[in-house]
Amino acid sequence: MSERVDVEQHRADVAELLAGFVERPGEQSAERPGGRPVEEVPLDGDVLGRVLARDVVAPEPLPRFRNSQMDGFAVRAADVAAAAPDAPVTLPVAGDVAAAPGDPAPLAPGTAVRIMTGAPVPAGADAVVPVEDTDQGTFNGSGAATASRVAVARGRAVGEFVREPGSDVAAGTVVLPAGTVLAPHHVAAAAACGVARLALVAPVSVAVVSTGSELVGPDREPGPGQIFDANGPALAAAVRAAGGRVGLRLALPDDPAAVRAGLERAAALCDLVLTTGGVSQGAYEVVKDALPEVTFRSVAMQPGGPQGLGRVGGTPLLAFPGNPVSAQVSFVVFLREILRAAAGLPPVDRVPAVLDDAVVSPAGRRQLLRGRWVRAAGPGASAGTGGPVGTVPHVAVVGGPGSHLVASMAAADVLIDVPAAATTLEPGAEVVVWPL
Amino acid sequence: MSERVDVEQHRADVAELLAGFVERPGEQSAERPGGRPVEEVPLDGDVLGRVLARDVVAPEPLPRFRNSQMDGFAVRAADVAAAAPDAPVTLPVAGDVAAAPGDPAPLAPGTAVRIMTGAPVPAGADAVVPVEDTDQGTFNGSGAATASRVAVARGRAVGEFVREPGSDVAAGTVVLPAGTVLAPHHVAAAAACGVARLALVAPVSVAVVSTGSELVGPDREPGPGQIFDANGPALAAAVRAAGGRVGLRLALPDDPAAVRAGLERAAALCDLVLTTGGVSQGAYEVVKDALPEVTFRSVAMQPGGPQGLGRVGGTPLLAFPGNPVSAQVSFVVFLREILRAAAGLPPVDRVPAVLDDAVVSPAGRRQLLRGRWVRAAGPGASAGTGGPVGTVPHVAVVGGPGSHLVASMAAADVLIDVPAAATTLEPGAEVVVWPL
Repeated sequence: MSERVDVEQHRADVAELLAGFVERPGEQSAERPGGRPVEEVPLDGDVLGRVLARDVVAPEPLPRFRNSQMDGFAVRAADVAAAAPDAPVTLPVAGDVAAAPGDPAPLAPGTAVRIMTGAPVPAGADAVVPVEDTDQGTFNGSGAATASRVAVARGRAVGEFVREPGSDVAAGTVVLPAGTVLAPHHVAAAAACGVARLALVAPVSVAVVSTGSELVGPDREPGPGQIFDANGPALAAAVRAAGGRVGLRLALPDDPAAVRAGLERAAALCDLVLTTGGVSQGAYEVVKDALPEVTFRSVAMQPGGPQGLGRVGGTPLLAFPGNPVSAQVSFVVFLREILRAAAGLPPVDRVPAVLDDAVVSPAGRRQLLRGRWVRAAGPGASAGTGGPVGTVPHVAVVGGPGSHLVASMAAADVLIDVPAAATTLEPGAEVVVWPL
Repeated sequence: MSERVDVEQHRADVAELLAGFVERPGEQSAERPGGRPVEEVPLDGDVLGRVLARDVVAPEPLPRFRNSQMDGFAVRAADVAAAAPDAPVTLPVAGDVAAAPGDPAPLAPGTAVRIMTGAPVPAGADAVVPVEDTDQGTFNGSGAATASRVAVARGRAVGEFVREPGSDVAAGTVVLPAGTVLAPHHVAAAAACGVARLALVAPVSVAVVSTGSELVGPDREPGPGQIFDANGPALAAAVRAAGGRVGLRLALPDDPAAVRAGLERAAALCDLVLTTGGVSQGAYEVVKDALPEVTFRSVAMQPGGPQGLGRVGGTPLLAFPGNPVSAQVSFVVFLREILRAAAGLPPVDRVPAVLDDAVVSPAGRRQLLRGRWVRAAGPGASAGTGGPVGTVPHVAVVGGPGSHLVASMAAADVLIDVPAAATTLEPGAEVVVWPL
């Protein structure tokens, strides 16, 4: 029948097929993850969790202008040099300066202006006396600064509490380096610098194609012999979660001509075509029949054995089996890491874990069992990736190895990786798990 | 001046103000996080990372109908009971059954049908013989099953390789419990069960209101005395990242009447109003002036000291300071955990870390310094939350304590929590950090 390969061989072949998503010769650098196309997205758009393709450079200095670090009084330092608590210096207050548009009037020597945090420091002033080092000023009328004065109880050096332009960020500074996975505080920094659009790594556009005449969409009532299309919504979600974009969704019947036409359309529109179903050893395997130029093989794994890879019209194509559990496992094992890398995202690391259950496994086939984190006993213990610092987390098997068990997939946190050579694992065995 | 409180007091007061978002008496249970309103979202919509408000229950059994677990031949078990490799039983093949709509014809006793994985098992058949335990059948003509036969080399018990309806999921089973944070494999399980819409915890709708006549939007060229509005985009991003929804964005000038009108509108439209700016000790503090019914106070922290909390027209309101770093720190310390809890999301845990730098801090004020993870030296070491198993991660201080340092916020991974009582911390001190 078809070629048999192990999981690592198929992973390597998929990685080679999709190498163009992750790096392009001559374009990659430490600063620019991969050589992926770039797209500009408004700062207010859907940017969280996405990755900067280019450095964000401050177009202007920050602060933009000389401004006050405190609520207080802007003065000439020389005018208050002699001030002390027991010998305050009193200055006339010429007015108020708030944080507002416009340039304030220059400060006349021997005078002060009341100034608010962030407000521009008038020309002629070279220090700000914080309000708590003054008598807060004496004003005629409520809030009006006319015909008023302030007593300053402490001298200030030139420049004190004055923020100079560019003292936070000089114009041209790299505020956020390429490769940054964007969080709200990065948005804050970009917005403060007046950056309106971000250059993000463009997602890989994936066509998600379900095949099978028996499939119906979730809003329809299935008749005899019909089942719901789980892989359409599920692989679309998986693509999005891995930083990809669903460029097209198709559900095609078991008709090789229709499948061929649909896949050619998908290949013309998207960067990658992902099919489910029609790849095993039965008499009617429509994806196999429609794609003579694609390699179909049996990968020594359970679930997810039947796999295909190749190109249609120059566009890479991966063919996953149709069972929803097999398709999800295939995505995690063969594609998730590549899509994440293409998006500039870090890998979801496989982690060591201690198995709480006995496992029996067929020789020669790597099993990916659905598992869940187990809350360890004892003080300070917790579940989840990593668990308590200094311990290896425990996992339990959910459900059986049957690839049709949707129920166990629903309850799973991880895939437990049982090596091909293992036929039995005892409770307490150390295994590697793939977080879902 | 205004009331002075410590950070924990203000956290407690904010939590009390916003308690309605997290639980409603009589509505909360272990299965239903909080008593938040529920919204129905199509399975193909934006569901990843959101939280189920209600259990997903299988409306029908899975599998929906009796189907084949293998590619092979559907038979009556009794007809092949005597089969053995050296004494195969040969049966006429009455046809093919593929995974396709419709009910297959019943199986006549003494015959077989070729059947594909997932295809409906005909009435009268009670076992499937996998293709590898047969001679694969002998067919007249390519693929046609007419006038053909199969030799079966191994007997099968009743029910072998036949999936009974409901054997994976019985109708009425809880497939995904309320509280599940949705990942692609959950979407797969729901889709397989034919669930078209999910009942999700409705996000808290937040009005993000920037104040200050000096602010301009990111697409405009600022004039003298003008600065970019960082808090609008940045707090909107923070709200979304914490599972909230931005219901309204406003930027209001330093005019108490305009601010009052804007905030009343925001309060009428949203679950929570979040303002920035206009809350400190200066002469022009527009949020303070516009909201006599709100409590303004000085929280003993740096940055982020001036804070307000109260209600406008019955809607909760939090007032953060206007400096972008102060506003982001305020969000993390006072609001992030509550919005996450309201959305059903787990908290972002504060974690212990070892400080690599010396820190000087004002007595009586809790400092939240921007910090970054430090890659520890030595084999197996890695940076990031948790770091290598068995070690406490190290953090370094980024930039200075000045609340205006946008540059250091951009480079930060965490906030380093320096207790109010500490005036100096030496390198090697154990601290608590808030991951950003």
